[in-house]
Amino acid sequence: MAATYTAVHPVRRPEGRPARDDFAFVTGTIPGLQDGQVLVENLLLSVDPYMREALEFEDWQEGFGMEGRTLGRVVASREPSLPVGAIVFHRHGWSTHAILGPRDTRRIVEPADGVPLSAYLGILGGTGLTAYVGLTRVAKLQPGEDLFVSAAAGAVGSAVGQIARVLGARRIVGSAGSAAKVDRLVQELGFDAAFDYHGGDLSKKLAEAAPDGVDVYFDNVGGDHLEAAIDGLREFGRIAWCGAIAQYDSLRTPPAAPRNLFDVVGKRIRLEGFLVRDHGDVRPEFEDFITPHLRSGAVRVDETVVDGFENIVDAFLGLLAGENTGKMLVRAGS
Amino acid sequence: MAATYTAVHPVRRPEGRPARDDFAFVTGTIPGLQDGQVLVENLLLSVDPYMREALEFEDWQEGFGMEGRTLGRVVASREPSLPVGAIVFHRHGWSTHAILGPRDTRRIVEPADGVPLSAYLGILGGTGLTAYVGLTRVAKLQPGEDLFVSAAAGAVGSAVGQIARVLGARRIVGSAGSAAKVDRLVQELGFDAAFDYHGGDLSKKLAEAAPDGVDVYFDNVGGDHLEAAIDGLREFGRIAWCGAIAQYDSLRTPPAAPRNLFDVVGKRIRLEGFLVRDHGDVRPEFEDFITPHLRSGAVRVDETVVDGFENIVDAFLGLLAGENTGKMLVRAGS
Repeated sequence: MAATYTAVHPVRRPEGRPARDDFAFVTGTIPGLQDGQVLVENLLLSVDPYMREALEFEDWQEGFGMEGRTLGRVVASREPSLPVGAIVFHRHGWSTHAILGPRDTRRIVEPADGVPLSAYLGILGGTGLTAYVGLTRVAKLQPGEDLFVSAAAGAVGSAVGQIARVLGARRIVGSAGSAAKVDRLVQELGFDAAFDYHGGDLSKKLAEAAPDGVDVYFDNVGGDHLEAAIDGLREFGRIAWCGAIAQYDSLRTPPAAPRNLFDVVGKRIRLEGFLVRDHGDVRPEFEDFITPHLRSGAVRVDETVVDGFENIVDAFLGLLAGENTGKMLVRAGS
Repeated sequence: MAATYTAVHPVRRPEGRPARDDFAFVTGTIPGLQDGQVLVENLLLSVDPYMREALEFEDWQEGFGMEGRTLGRVVASREPSLPVGAIVFHRHGWSTHAILGPRDTRRIVEPADGVPLSAYLGILGGTGLTAYVGLTRVAKLQPGEDLFVSAAAGAVGSAVGQIARVLGARRIVGSAGSAAKVDRLVQELGFDAAFDYHGGDLSKKLAEAAPDGVDVYFDNVGGDHLEAAIDGLREFGRIAWCGAIAQYDSLRTPPAAPRNLFDVVGKRIRLEGFLVRDHGDVRPEFEDFITPHLRSGAVRVDETVVDGFENIVDAFLGLLAGENTGKMLVRAGS
């Protein structure tokens, strides 16, 4: 068992897009456990767009690194409910190890047959829950309705498209940042149409991809995508806005809001912001819903895995640059 | 009985704010009735902000003038269900007379005791229903919650404030366009605070009027008011957006959307546009709700009445210039 840990600390508030020098790898001696504590070796770490925002507000705390969703294995225990070997989900990532108690962890007792452990950080975790909550609780997508999702090749976006399909959506359209991602959405992830958002008029591109309009827009981007979606939405359309990856670099000067916002009145559009953390009560329902679809292959585990904890900063920067398809993960453990 | 009618026709599409020359008074001979028709002499005519928008799309039809909500009396009848003397609500205003059938009219059989006829064009009509639907169906205002309404001295705004009070709202704050209107909101219409929106930072003015924030914003204005409201709303706040009087003059180039729109995500705000015409099914519930409050005086009939059909264009232009308090009506009949 390692006597030292390595963690990533933020050491500088980024100006615009974060850079490698905004972070530092630090090492320290793992302290002894107290009663009720376990030592967890982290196996799989999630890097997520929201972490860019967290960098603005992070407490720059000492200790085991930045907040991050993680799967780990208990390697030493003074807590009977979490024996050595137990697999746990927790939020103390960006570190090779964490010292935790039962309240900080959610034990993953029985990984479902045919579902990889990594799914608990992606489609079966907060990413999938975000997609499911946005579709069923916020947008209230109905079978037969048409959907547009931005950043569709990202973790949440690809979950939205796949979950919307099994919820009975009719036409599913996505935007992505490269021709390769566009191809992947249509050929591998079951999208009916997709377009590259670079260059040209987004409203026109959406109109070409969804000539009859859409009922629901799942917004991961904001800005010009939101404007195009308002143009493309039908009357009584709904927008579930779960975050804005394009805006995290410019929180202090957010981009222009859609010039056509007034159309929400004439079209009776509902625009609603949400954070998945308010919807933890939906998790059991979601797990029951998604697991059979994962087993059958109707919904795919869509992920990019970077090997080695030493590459976590590069993985995060790559995520912000759109280098991933699906969920971006770092494999840290053995 | 008059053998001729006078009606107002739009004769020119307004550039920006409409002017008197955009309209013409025309006279004609009243045609004979066919079976199933009645001749109605209009008594009270409503002028409303939405008519500015209608001018952009009006069909410039020949006949009895522009669309407008009106109360009239049957003066000749070839329809047994609508005898001479019956009072009817209809939408063929901007004229001294209208020829209508049962489908075009809603008969007002029993005006409630202590409720003036004019209320059926205002607080007891589409204006009040707009306020009630926006508060109960769109914003879902709960007892004890705090409210901000823009254009609060207007017909819908003053209904919103008064209806919110009897629905159990706690702090009710409004904006208006003059110091006199601000005084009136607080001293006569039961608002807890109000401010003049001219000059200065609206977010700051709202924060002074509602230091603890608000739960609901009823938007009659859009633009900078919407931006201030997003700043002032608490988490899980709701915006019911029913129209935008300030924007009707500039539909072709709508004003800037709120720069802080992205905050709807972090605050989990719901923004929803609505049109009262989708909610006609709520009318019976609303009438049952509001009538006792009108009788008791808890809700006031708040109106500005201009005498003489010949003044209807000036009344409409005055409405757009904010010269009214409450519902703007024209008394045309004898």
